[in-house]
Amino acid sequence: MKASVFFTVNEVDGAVLQGHTAIVIDVLRATSTIVAALAAGAHAIFPVVSTEEAIKLANSLGRADTLLAGERKGLKIEGFDLGNSPREFTPEAVLGKQVVMSTTNGTRALLAAAPADRVLVASFLNLSAVAEASAGAERLAVVCAGQEGRFAIDDALCAGMLLGRLEERLGSELEVDEAGRVLLTLAGAYGVDPELLHESASGHALAAIGLAEDVDWCARVDVETLVPELRDRMIRRVDDGGA
Amino acid sequence: MKASVFFTVNEVDGAVLQGHTAIVIDVLRATSTIVAALAAGAHAIFPVVSTEEAIKLANSLGRADTLLAGERKGLKIEGFDLGNSPREFTPEAVLGKQVVMSTTNGTRALLAAAPADRVLVASFLNLSAVAEASAGAERLAVVCAGQEGRFAIDDALCAGMLLGRLEERLGSELEVDEAGRVLLTLAGAYGVDPELLHESASGHALAAIGLAEDVDWCARVDVETLVPELRDRMIRRVDDGGA
Repeated sequence: MKASVFFTVNEVDGAVLQGHTAIVIDVLRATSTIVAALAAGAHAIFPVVSTEEAIKLANSLGRADTLLAGERKGLKIEGFDLGNSPREFTPEAVLGKQVVMSTTNGTRALLAAAPADRVLVASFLNLSAVAEASAGAERLAVVCAGQEGRFAIDDALCAGMLLGRLEERLGSELEVDEAGRVLLTLAGAYGVDPELLHESASGHALAAIGLAEDVDWCARVDVETLVPELRDRMIRRVDDGGA
Repeated sequence: MKASVFFTVNEVDGAVLQGHTAIVIDVLRATSTIVAALAAGAHAIFPVVSTEEAIKLANSLGRADTLLAGERKGLKIEGFDLGNSPREFTPEAVLGKQVVMSTTNGTRALLAAAPADRVLVASFLNLSAVAEASAGAERLAVVCAGQEGRFAIDDALCAGMLLGRLEERLGSELEVDEAGRVLLTLAGAYGVDPELLHESASGHALAAIGLAEDVDWCARVDVETLVPELRDRMIRRVDDGGA
């Protein structure tokens, strides 16, 4: 396997992703929230960029079974059903529903990765499951969402740990690019470290709006075994028609 | 001091650099070559993006005292006096001359950094000298050239070692951003490692055109004490009217 890492959405060139399995990571919080939503029984997530697009799509899907979720500056979008805190996505809230979701960085990263042959969604929560699901790919592109075009250490650490899991499986068959090599070093130095996440720009931003608990929630490793896959603009579990 | 790191030119937003001292790094090879050229007695370097611009500027400066230098795909531009190998910039070749230089990544990075309050030029060759010259800055922006818009480990390692030098001087007064934190970890794990540079994409590209010796040449640490500074589109030594 050849694995490349993109530190931010802005680096991603859709044409380059053809022939690749892409793995999208936005630890704080979009991809963690997607894992939480599917684990709680939501049957699909539709990532969209704008608020207007979200409302339009929710209306066309039928509002009875559709929830609107998303954030701007970390807070729930006015008039939406849910924000972007994974702790909101309980079975009571989302079981059997579909969710139209718009977040600042994560949904952009998902849509930027869409030209890849497959697009999987990773977080600390389902790290090993994604490593297992992607281990057979010949070419892997790990797409970190980053924060507003800048490198985000939370996504980078998760990407590094994912590569570490793949290295354990594949040994010298895993060839990483230079960015990947740096992230393997980072993951080796820190492992999963909730303090590092709290100290990150995203962690500080969440603390400032009273959502520091989300950080600890998203720092839990391998608490879920599901793998979300984006296909035809819809994210579902791989074992639920996604593959 | 607050220090930010940009992994590639593409991340750099000129407006953000105002109020900053910027340090530009393109280890393989543009910033190493600039250090070599000034050390060999060239009195100024003019970085320009295009071949046409280089020729036009050299003509207006007067060809008698001006050399044309630069590369495309690593090789000397046809009709130019010098390529981009620092080993070409001997006193015999450049003493008392000014050099108009155009390279693929390095000159773009220098010009992208130009809106900063000061722009210094770093490489392994003059690492400690640049750390000393920049230690008093309140805001530092380390701009890695990268390779064609992607992360380059050679520049990243040099940036990490530079931050390490600053950390030794400034202790807890040095605040690094998330990218900087990762590079400090990288530098701590590897130190200067010619093997890592040979294995990089830039190192492979140089080996492929018979210039692997340039890599070892550029991997030497602190062999020069001069600090090049870009001012008014011209790079000179800080102690030679640059500061």
